[in-house]
Amino acid sequence: MIRQPSTAGNEKGVQQLVSEKLTQLGLEVDIWEPDVKALSKSKFFNSSRSDFDNSPNVVGVLAGTGGGHSIILNGHVDVVPPGDLNTWDEDPYSGRVKDGKVYGRGATDMKGGNAALLIALETIVDMDVQLKGDVIFQSVIEEESGGSGTLSVIEERGYKGDVALLPEPSEMKIFPKQQGSVWFKVKVKGISAHGGTRYEGVSAIDKGIKVYHKLLELEKIRNDRLNDPLYAENPIPIPLNIGQFNGGYFPSAVPDDVEIEGRYGIAPAESIEEAQREFEETLKHLAEDDEWFKEHPVTVEWFGLRLPPGGCDLDHPFLEVLKNSYQSVKNEEPTLAGSTWGTDGGLLTQAGNIPSLIFGPGTTRMAHFSNEYVELDKIFDTAEIITEAILEWCNRSK
Amino acid sequence: MIRQPSTAGNEKGVQQLVSEKLTQLGLEVDIWEPDVKALSKSKFFNSSRSDFDNSPNVVGVLAGTGGGHSIILNGHVDVVPPGDLNTWDEDPYSGRVKDGKVYGRGATDMKGGNAALLIALETIVDMDVQLKGDVIFQSVIEEESGGSGTLSVIEERGYKGDVALLPEPSEMKIFPKQQGSVWFKVKVKGISAHGGTRYEGVSAIDKGIKVYHKLLELEKIRNDRLNDPLYAENPIPIPLNIGQFNGGYFPSAVPDDVEIEGRYGIAPAESIEEAQREFEETLKHLAEDDEWFKEHPVTVEWFGLRLPPGGCDLDHPFLEVLKNSYQSVKNEEPTLAGSTWGTDGGLLTQAGNIPSLIFGPGTTRMAHFSNEYVELDKIFDTAEIITEAILEWCNRSK
Repeated sequence: MIRQPSTAGNEKGVQQLVSEKLTQLGLEVDIWEPDVKALSKSKFFNSSRSDFDNSPNVVGVLAGTGGGHSIILNGHVDVVPPGDLNTWDEDPYSGRVKDGKVYGRGATDMKGGNAALLIALETIVDMDVQLKGDVIFQSVIEEESGGSGTLSVIEERGYKGDVALLPEPSEMKIFPKQQGSVWFKVKVKGISAHGGTRYEGVSAIDKGIKVYHKLLELEKIRNDRLNDPLYAENPIPIPLNIGQFNGGYFPSAVPDDVEIEGRYGIAPAESIEEAQREFEETLKHLAEDDEWFKEHPVTVEWFGLRLPPGGCDLDHPFLEVLKNSYQSVKNEEPTLAGSTWGTDGGLLTQAGNIPSLIFGPGTTRMAHFSNEYVELDKIFDTAEIITEAILEWCNRSK
Repeated sequence: MIRQPSTAGNEKGVQQLVSEKLTQLGLEVDIWEPDVKALSKSKFFNSSRSDFDNSPNVVGVLAGTGGGHSIILNGHVDVVPPGDLNTWDEDPYSGRVKDGKVYGRGATDMKGGNAALLIALETIVDMDVQLKGDVIFQSVIEEESGGSGTLSVIEERGYKGDVALLPEPSEMKIFPKQQGSVWFKVKVKGISAHGGTRYEGVSAIDKGIKVYHKLLELEKIRNDRLNDPLYAENPIPIPLNIGQFNGGYFPSAVPDDVEIEGRYGIAPAESIEEAQREFEETLKHLAEDDEWFKEHPVTVEWFGLRLPPGGCDLDHPFLEVLKNSYQSVKNEEPTLAGSTWGTDGGLLTQAGNIPSLIFGPGTTRMAHFSNEYVELDKIFDTAEIITEAILEWCNRSK
């Protein structure tokens, strides 16, 4: 799977592999290209693509006999580009195995997780047990670029499940809550003038720095308010990351505009809309400390990334099942935490109304980095834990 | 002259006009293209051009009989580009006369001033008086792009004078002092990380804001120290303008570098080198407040613009001559001030060791702006004042 360079728009090769495997295992296989026109009606749609030609979704269903609990296993096959090839020790799509690790773009995020799912499915098929509930395996596109793959599974195909498990790189921690995130762009105005008489202008950089500090204040207020034990160990559970600050056009001129771009974390219990409202309201208060903003209010744009938060209740019965399986395989308590990043789990929870959990073998810090790898032992352990959990969950009567 | 679009590299047409006029007036005319190779040996050389083909300098000398004071009249013919044509009410090179103003790119900066010089020369020639000292008229290229035209007059041709007058747009104020300026680029480092766990990184924007404030502190210290009555009315006599602040590469990533670019004003009594040293020393103190800078010091680059400050002593006898001529023509005291921008006067003073003054008809705020104009009456008044000053100065025995 790693040898298939499945960046956005190039997922066909790996999806072919996946669908062949699912067919081999005897599952009912559904392959389709998402329809931009149909999806764009959803408020969760977020893509700049005009079509999804050559970017098929694949779903395989291991149908139960009925009366049991069903589970969705969701993994994305798209990977982020490898970036500067000089920072890789070898071909980013080598799939090379060395010292118990498999290397390559997507190893940890999240083809290692997808492999664990396929191993679990194969094990269950090989065991020749008959489950009561359905197991719905979703191999999706576009997670890294807005989630249209999973959105299509929900909106166009209507697959439902009692719970969803996504083996994103959690280092085998269980994340019953996951942060959402959106991108923002704040535009700040100034008045240009010659640098030699800079007092005749108003520096947009100066004003932009005030916006910067205001946003950090907002981050503090939001995090002080959050009281979720899953994030107790996290210094900034829902960070507001200011990723870009660009202003001015000439060294000798007073800068008359600044753009500040960043990523705004959404708490698991929040809606994106409510968090956005708080952000916009906060920036309105700038005028209280600086009259400039009264006449020249900043503008806020929400663009690009838009991942709703997701999760399940802490008393959701599948969480107990997964914890027990972990305990049985690893002989220790699993670590529970809240994820610091968004995944397609947010869409499953908010657009699909399906409780979702993250539990996967990957190394978080290797996601999107050069020389990305995943440890083979963790793939196998994850597969074993998921297998046990499925056997327990899908055989439980409703 | 305005109808000749003499942006950098396109000065040949206007220089042709000027040299024809000078020849007509009976001056000895010298025309040459500056030699990059010869000039690049000078520490004052600052140009990205590989040659000055089609960009000739023109010098015309009205030779005196000997024993008198000489004067250099220096004006540049290059103009900055017109920018967005939609912001002009008509063709930027129309040279249209309307309501006592002549319009077009370069009208105020500084073809209006050059015209005043030519009118003064023509008047003196028409008067048929014989001056003791030389009048050296220098029509130069490249003032807007680093001063290679004037540098070539000094270094390659060796023209000397007892004083230099530059009719840059001073609104008929006399500037016996002029500010210099250089461009700087400060690079600030951080450590990248995913925005969801931004506490694992170090924001270069955060560190860049500390640099920003440190530079404003430096500006305050430098201006508090300055005690020049010529700048008494000026809120920031030697400004440090931060023109650009650019950092970060992705909304969801902690930014790991920032570049801050700006223009650093040099006081008339300062050398560029000494001002640069103070700038660099100040940034070393950042480490006292923030350990980060100890391990990751900022780097400073001096690039592009480099205009030395210039001027003359306040008891220079020509200043008195010019003040008297002004008083005699305008029936009022002239305003003396220090310029807030650099000109070729800095090169004449520092590379040529020639005291220099600015006095011209142009409207300062129209320089480099759309719908640039100069008032005709001011050109004529300036010409009259300069004519009187030359007659007095160049007939004074040494």
